[in-house]
Amino acid sequence: MAVALALYDPGDEVLVPNPGFVLYGPHARLAGAVPVAYSLVEKGGYLPDLPELERLVTPRTTAIVVNSPSNPTGAVYPKGIVDRIVAFADRHDLTIVSDEVYEEIVYEGTATSFWGRSDRAVIVNSFSKTFATTGWRIGFLVAPRPLAVELNKIHYHIMACPSTPAQVAVLAGLGSTAATRRMVKEFRLRRDLVVRLLSEIPGIELVPPGGAFYAFPRFSWPRSSQDVAGALLGRGVITTPGDAFGSLGASHLRLSFAASRENLRRGIEIIAKYAEAFDAGGR
Amino acid sequence: MAVALALYDPGDEVLVPNPGFVLYGPHARLAGAVPVAYSLVEKGGYLPDLPELERLVTPRTTAIVVNSPSNPTGAVYPKGIVDRIVAFADRHDLTIVSDEVYEEIVYEGTATSFWGRSDRAVIVNSFSKTFATTGWRIGFLVAPRPLAVELNKIHYHIMACPSTPAQVAVLAGLGSTAATRRMVKEFRLRRDLVVRLLSEIPGIELVPPGGAFYAFPRFSWPRSSQDVAGALLGRGVITTPGDAFGSLGASHLRLSFAASRENLRRGIEIIAKYAEAFDAGGR
Repeated sequence: MAVALALYDPGDEVLVPNPGFVLYGPHARLAGAVPVAYSLVEKGGYLPDLPELERLVTPRTTAIVVNSPSNPTGAVYPKGIVDRIVAFADRHDLTIVSDEVYEEIVYEGTATSFWGRSDRAVIVNSFSKTFATTGWRIGFLVAPRPLAVELNKIHYHIMACPSTPAQVAVLAGLGSTAATRRMVKEFRLRRDLVVRLLSEIPGIELVPPGGAFYAFPRFSWPRSSQDVAGALLGRGVITTPGDAFGSLGASHLRLSFAASRENLRRGIEIIAKYAEAFDAGGR
Repeated sequence: MAVALALYDPGDEVLVPNPGFVLYGPHARLAGAVPVAYSLVEKGGYLPDLPELERLVTPRTTAIVVNSPSNPTGAVYPKGIVDRIVAFADRHDLTIVSDEVYEEIVYEGTATSFWGRSDRAVIVNSFSKTFATTGWRIGFLVAPRPLAVELNKIHYHIMACPSTPAQVAVLAGLGSTAATRRMVKEFRLRRDLVVRLLSEIPGIELVPPGGAFYAFPRFSWPRSSQDVAGALLGRGVITTPGDAFGSLGASHLRLSFAASRENLRRGIEIIAKYAEAFDAGGR
């Protein structure tokens, strides 16, 4: 919100990922700007379509929002893609707004940060995921000084200051990555479990997530993602309908694996049962 | 911020107090609305000028921001004034945005809340002052259900949820007013001290604050409030220049008495010394 209110002017166009996290578009709108969705292409692992990005740029485009590792797709951008997005942004004088809150939750190798790769990159980060402290509401932001000065003014108008107890609390976690590494190790087991169990369900296709703690399977049933999520909710499983994340989220569900392996097994079993009706030709 | 983004549309006019707290105008602007300052008249105790309010209303006026007890003036609106503001707002279909964060810090009688006096009143409150927990960043808001539904959406987009630890912490304070009453008793002693000491300084006039923990003296020295505040800062006293609170704050300083009586004595002594130069005809 601070980035949007500080850096977007009314009428500006802001490139936002589709599918992408639910806040980027509304934040742009709240600042009077216009969100313009760019595709993350499922085939190939939910990466941006660079030629499409070039076509979407207009003289009003001022920023591109990126999010790797991604919520909801779990995609982690390879360094080559990061480089190409940076070159694209530089070519068109765009500010890069990089949401890197899942940077430490990666299952192979490490995530490539946009930090240090562009003079126009604003890195938005949080302790919520790295320290599993979502409820503490404390994050941070890295930006070039001229932007940081403006961001700080807006930050005051939004929240005056970050919560003092939360600031003290996260200090305890800085300097040690042991707990985060243990957590990621457990998340990797869950990821493997979810990928395996979902692959056994007819009508489900999944790009295995390389980071974050979400699976974003596509289903082939003739139902909206709202309907499927609603039906599953009635059977005891909470999922997020894919189209909450943009038009390319249609026919998808977001599953979180911030749940025990036992509960993940039970939940996916319920999804498998739900799928059987379609498999048998039932509606 | 949530009230502004949820309830003000671009081009709306919002009546904000002058002098008044520094955020009301910028919040309106950030929502694309236009803040329109209304006078709080020093003579008579910084109360609104009802005939002026009538003159300021246009077809675009959608809300009036009120703040009693007031930051920076310390004024507490008598019930008769609250009634007249409610009647004014009802007559023009205005939403009342009432910032009541100092409601428990009152030195004579009690503050009259706008809560329950209008179907269009949004009451903004906080635990910051009542529990002396400013750094915890937790407050609350009371609004008619249709507005609350919209406010809740914006609240999610601003901060997702209030800090969980802060929610648990303030629970400990609910249900007992003993600590707040002790605090207000001490603030009353400081208020009396500050009023007495300031009254002895030539060139200073003060409307004694009836609530909050600020004094808002007028000075007669031929200096801007920025200059006076800057000079005092150099001598070791932090004050806020009055014109930070609007044009009618010119030639005023805001003094906080959230400081020990000992420090208040030392600070006001420094102000008295600074005043002597003018008293002796010095510039």
